[in-house]
Amino acid sequence: MTSFKHRRSLEEVFLTLLSIPSPSGKENQIAEYIRQYAESLGFEVREEVEDPSLGETGNLVIHSFTSFPPHEEPVVLVAHMDTVPIPLEGKVPLIMEEDLIHTGGVSPLGADDKAGVALALHVLEKVSKEPETYTPVEVVLTVREEQGCLGARHFSPSRIRARKGICLDGETPIGTAIVQSPTKWKYTIQVQGKSAHAALNAEEGVNAILHACRIGAALPTGLLDPSTTANIGIVEGGTSINVVPDRCTIKGELRSFEEARLLFWREEITKQVEEATNGNKYRTPGSVSPDKLFPQSSISWELAYPGYTLNKEEPLLNRFQLGCQTLGLTPQFLSSRGGGDANYFNAKGIPSFVLGLGMEGIHTSSERYRLSTLHEAARLLEQILCSGTGPITFLNDSPIG
Amino acid sequence: MTSFKHRRSLEEVFLTLLSIPSPSGKENQIAEYIRQYAESLGFEVREEVEDPSLGETGNLVIHSFTSFPPHEEPVVLVAHMDTVPIPLEGKVPLIMEEDLIHTGGVSPLGADDKAGVALALHVLEKVSKEPETYTPVEVVLTVREEQGCLGARHFSPSRIRARKGICLDGETPIGTAIVQSPTKWKYTIQVQGKSAHAALNAEEGVNAILHACRIGAALPTGLLDPSTTANIGIVEGGTSINVVPDRCTIKGELRSFEEARLLFWREEITKQVEEATNGNKYRTPGSVSPDKLFPQSSISWELAYPGYTLNKEEPLLNRFQLGCQTLGLTPQFLSSRGGGDANYFNAKGIPSFVLGLGMEGIHTSSERYRLSTLHEAARLLEQILCSGTGPITFLNDSPIG
Repeated sequence: MTSFKHRRSLEEVFLTLLSIPSPSGKENQIAEYIRQYAESLGFEVREEVEDPSLGETGNLVIHSFTSFPPHEEPVVLVAHMDTVPIPLEGKVPLIMEEDLIHTGGVSPLGADDKAGVALALHVLEKVSKEPETYTPVEVVLTVREEQGCLGARHFSPSRIRARKGICLDGETPIGTAIVQSPTKWKYTIQVQGKSAHAALNAEEGVNAILHACRIGAALPTGLLDPSTTANIGIVEGGTSINVVPDRCTIKGELRSFEEARLLFWREEITKQVEEATNGNKYRTPGSVSPDKLFPQSSISWELAYPGYTLNKEEPLLNRFQLGCQTLGLTPQFLSSRGGGDANYFNAKGIPSFVLGLGMEGIHTSSERYRLSTLHEAARLLEQILCSGTGPITFLNDSPIG
Repeated sequence: MTSFKHRRSLEEVFLTLLSIPSPSGKENQIAEYIRQYAESLGFEVREEVEDPSLGETGNLVIHSFTSFPPHEEPVVLVAHMDTVPIPLEGKVPLIMEEDLIHTGGVSPLGADDKAGVALALHVLEKVSKEPETYTPVEVVLTVREEQGCLGARHFSPSRIRARKGICLDGETPIGTAIVQSPTKWKYTIQVQGKSAHAALNAEEGVNAILHACRIGAALPTGLLDPSTTANIGIVEGGTSINVVPDRCTIKGELRSFEEARLLFWREEITKQVEEATNGNKYRTPGSVSPDKLFPQSSISWELAYPGYTLNKEEPLLNRFQLGCQTLGLTPQFLSSRGGGDANYFNAKGIPSFVLGLGMEGIHTSSERYRLSTLHEAARLLEQILCSGTGPITFLNDSPIG
């Protein structure tokens, strides 16, 4: 058992978290450290283990208050325990240059999101010492965020009392809050042709790749309008150059801040695929007649995550602004084209913004993080969670429209 | 050591060969059996081992004559020792139903080309007993035919005296000879775009898959003219749906009986790729300006095998026709859209036709072969190789134009 008799500093906890590998689905070691840490503060840690498909560990839920109702409406702090895959076996090398931490370019650092986890534990420690000074908090530490927010997706909101939250997972600078994120859909296009030998009976084949290319060449991709992006991400078809391929798959995504635009573009993409399918059976050069059955194509859609746009009058956002001002920062509300655990917490009725933690180079081997940034984030978070802070006047200089 | 003191029958040799697994690159066990068999007949077996990249075993070369010059211009018999991959470990199950041999549908049988190997060994035995009755023969048993004729491709014609040959590897019926095969080229199209996040900075990306689809949609594929086929065989691009893919690859082939058509279509395909590259930098929807550098695309061509069209006046083809007639078969000259070891023997100055051995369902788990067919092939081969048979009148009823 790790001894937490002498409280550790924020930096120590952060460095310890970085030293424990926790790629998605393998969060048990880091979860064990967190559990011991929180229990040493006197808090109970519950693991959400209903869904064994999530891997060896479930989301951790920690309440910082024992009296019900708490003295003030609680806030949930959300961070994720997992990281993107680590190429090296064992630990991540930690190189310190003054207050900058990096891996020397050999591996992602994992500050995404161990900075967030460290900050949540930091708040728990503060609360444990001065419960009346701070807003009551609950902490949810999720698993497998990097694999599509699987932990947050399966999180049951009945496990906590808080109905507002802060996701400690923003790569944007200190002083920013992400208050808008798009809805994202994934699509898979399947094209079926008819297999044949490329030469011996070429005229009997229907080339699925050719047909998929005809669909793909007409698919909307890139920035489609100011609210909407799409991407053809993966294409795969065929097994051998001397076989007419009977299968080809195209995978992509579509995201928009506006549901109406999303529906419009989803319809456009679906139409491209259907039009290619119906009434457009192409004629293989040299074939006796167009094939009546092939090619066939279909598209399936799956919701990756729901979007959100927070009401800027949210008391928690006012607290964020006040906290920034207290620290001499100009608060900024941002719109992100990305998504994360916050999308699912918002969708589950827990309006949550993402606090910018000033991460750098996330998901790459150049990921780096400054301890001074961590301390700045901690100070801002303490300000936001100072008990009893009333709503402040809404600031008009935020860039979000 | 296997004992060959008592000569084995054609059937026994064939069944023994079938029972020895020899997927491409793993021909050493079957080569050892063949070596012992041929040496027991008094012939020297040489292994062509110059190219270690060919695997554990090289091509085997066996001369059936010791006097130089031999009493008549020799003929080389070619067969390949390897088979397509065998799904089951160890031996191929052999099920006999009357004279039909199959595996019960669990594995390719390997009659392709162990029927050919058995026939070559059968001829060697005949020649060993009655050297004056038969045309002097040389036997070349190749490796890795199923992986692109690698053994034949590396075969050095200086190892044999024969300047005409018979490839014992035809899946066509007994009584057929393949006298024409196309030249085949392989192509690889590489498209390079510019990576970006699918949403965060979508406008900076150049989607390689989109561009590859635009190329692919316009690529000639299928039966292009009576002499020419092409096939888009494989497409692969992208790693994740939320990343604008910067690479996409299309692989395909082109084959034709006529060099002029081959050049024409090769030029057409190359033009499609180049036109898409030059002066057609597409504008990503929403991007500030078309990207000057991307997409880039290129095509590379590689000769898979050279084609051949035999002169129908070849004395060996006349012998084939005479042999068929003697056995009551109607000889047929065929053109094949496929290729094999014969392509390389022809290209190396050894005009060779492919003798139809009546194989069924090759390269599939339904492969089957009849012992009666094997005996019929042996009788025909004996006829063809009967010493001193003069040229006969050319038959006009062959389907080749």
